[in-house]
Amino acid sequence: MRNKQTGEQANGQTDMPKLYVALTHYPVVNKKGNVIASALTNLDLHDISRAAKTYGLKSFFVVTPLEDQKELAERIISHWTDGFGGVYNPHRRNALELIRIRDSLSAVYEEVAAEEKSYPVTVATCARKYPTSISYKEFRAMLDSGKPYVLILGTAWGLAEEFISEADYVLEPIAGNSDYNHLSVRSAAAIIFDRLLGKK
Amino acid sequence: MRNKQTGEQANGQTDMPKLYVALTHYPVVNKKGNVIASALTNLDLHDISRAAKTYGLKSFFVVTPLEDQKELAERIISHWTDGFGGVYNPHRRNALELIRIRDSLSAVYEEVAAEEKSYPVTVATCARKYPTSISYKEFRAMLDSGKPYVLILGTAWGLAEEFISEADYVLEPIAGNSDYNHLSVRSAAAIIFDRLLGKK
Repeated sequence: MRNKQTGEQANGQTDMPKLYVALTHYPVVNKKGNVIASALTNLDLHDISRAAKTYGLKSFFVVTPLEDQKELAERIISHWTDGFGGVYNPHRRNALELIRIRDSLSAVYEEVAAEEKSYPVTVATCARKYPTSISYKEFRAMLDSGKPYVLILGTAWGLAEEFISEADYVLEPIAGNSDYNHLSVRSAAAIIFDRLLGKK
Repeated sequence: MRNKQTGEQANGQTDMPKLYVALTHYPVVNKKGNVIASALTNLDLHDISRAAKTYGLKSFFVVTPLEDQKELAERIISHWTDGFGGVYNPHRRNALELIRIRDSLSAVYEEVAAEEKSYPVTVATCARKYPTSISYKEFRAMLDSGKPYVLILGTAWGLAEEFISEADYVLEPIAGNSDYNHLSVRSAAAIIFDRLLGKK
């Protein structure tokens, strides 16, 4: 039996997909393919949190091991959640409250596992196809299982190869209708959420 | 008869949709509903041009009547098209080359009409529904007609009412799967292009 107000079932389960997103700043590659830790981009936090809130994601993890970058992220968020910004524009506050800043993807997985009482299935994103690639339709159907999922987005020139191959699945690349495929991570996140969770 | 290389038909017509996008900085409304000219956002130019290039749009018009804002836009674009940036990252150059900076929407319509030998159909975007609202499916089918279309995006708190009511159609709002609907214009543009032009 479901509570119409909250969407929660009597057993405490909800029928909303349990999708988390993690924006990763390490380990990613630079233009030359070298593994680096990338710098935070202010608008990644704003745009991806607003899209995540619009599509009902459970949380938006920002992953960086760098202390100064974590402080920067905290400052941006608290301006809009605690400070003047939260009063001026509550819509931004509601979105940015989804963000959790963490050191590593493994810390993210452990946290989701503890919260959901189930280890999350991990899905990496990449501009190339892999043997473990799944389509949007397949991923959309998988989300109906009720299992928790972590969608991993990379910054800079993308996730380091080791992290892609360690993920349970890789989501197929977004194909537009040209040979050009260089979307920003903000645009890619919005399109992926819409394809996975948008109303049909 | 169609040339497979270029997609052009023998009569010079192409079967690619003729979709143009215009990002409007005037007249838009601020939080209080007053009509203003909004300031340019650097990442709007980058993100929307990259998404427009990915989805095969014909051009990306940036509309502002303010001289200093036009100069700012020119500087951003030329850094990536003529300067060091164009050599360092040709993908950005290819995308930013789609941008044309113009004073007004009427200047945009006249230019498209001259180029296409047909006055464009105009489609505004808004977070509310209108009597002239069309669905994504309807707009997608209309693009197959071969007519030129201008999709109008607003900045700040959205397009001024007069411009929405003057458009031929209004595109239905993007519904995520929550009550929250405050996407950035960059995210909204990416989702709209994907819904209208993404491969099915």
